[in-house]
Amino acid sequence: MDFTIRAASLEDCKDIARMIRELAEFEKVDEHVKVTQRDLEQDGFSKNPFFHGIIAEVPEQLRTKEGHTKIGYALYFYSYSSWKGRSVYMEDLYVMPEFRGKGIGKALMSKVAQLGLAAGCNQFNFTVLEWNKSSLDFYLSQGCFDVTASMGYHCMRCEGEALEHLAQP
Amino acid sequence: MDFTIRAASLEDCKDIARMIRELAEFEKVDEHVKVTQRDLEQDGFSKNPFFHGIIAEVPEQLRTKEGHTKIGYALYFYSYSSWKGRSVYMEDLYVMPEFRGKGIGKALMSKVAQLGLAAGCNQFNFTVLEWNKSSLDFYLSQGCFDVTASMGYHCMRCEGEALEHLAQP
Repeated sequence: MDFTIRAASLEDCKDIARMIRELAEFEKVDEHVKVTQRDLEQDGFSKNPFFHGIIAEVPEQLRTKEGHTKIGYALYFYSYSSWKGRSVYMEDLYVMPEFRGKGIGKALMSKVAQLGLAAGCNQFNFTVLEWNKSSLDFYLSQGCFDVTASMGYHCMRCEGEALEHLAQP
Repeated sequence: MDFTIRAASLEDCKDIARMIRELAEFEKVDEHVKVTQRDLEQDGFSKNPFFHGIIAEVPEQLRTKEGHTKIGYALYFYSYSSWKGRSVYMEDLYVMPEFRGKGIGKALMSKVAQLGLAAGCNQFNFTVLEWNKSSLDFYLSQGCFDVTASMGYHCMRCEGEALEHLAQP
């Protein structure tokens, strides 16, 4: 299939916001999504951005029935491992359902890995939902391993009022 | 106990590298630690740093028998949630054994939370080893929740030759 992979720009934020919602619906957590197009524009495309994006795009003749040509994305940011040093974290990887199985997800993920290696990163980290077996199998087939299953690391979070309270000296 | 919490500087990297090794020994993974004092200096204290640090320090009269006054640290970096937006990630939180139970870990974590909120972050993320029950209980007591247990997210990783392979177009 004819597609291109490129760095996201400010003009892509509307489509990224749409696909973030689509991904959250698939993950059955769309009520959790508070991020808007405007947030993405501010947080990803100003000085000291909080994330970077990659877009997968198809030619006009392959557009969806709703008219979309931007049909996949990855969000990533640079992070750090106190064991291994510079790392890259892939926050999201998404390809619209009708474009799956054509190597687009692999191409997006590969681009994040390339950029990470170019920046001196030694680790590529992300999370997966344990019930999402097709994604888990795909990641394992790419040589990734499950840090939670193999080493016992659990993801922890603090937010909302608990975070305000934690910040009290 | 008399202690101070402050931002880490280049001069703290020797002690941070020492405490990273101590933490890894506790976590029984010290063979995984490749990061050196020099890596920390380059990656945390140059333009566009990959992480930031917080140091806990005690006065000279409370120094350890080896002469250490820097007795705890936290490493953190800014990250992004496609649901909630700006986030802060705490990579490490460590207090030397003889200084535990005195509120130093809480003070370090609280400082990271304060800095995160000041930067507009809505989430505070980190990981914990599932067998480290005293840490897990401490985090739960601070209002944090286990994202792996409650939502099923698993940490995934790619590194070494698998990462090189993934980056092939």
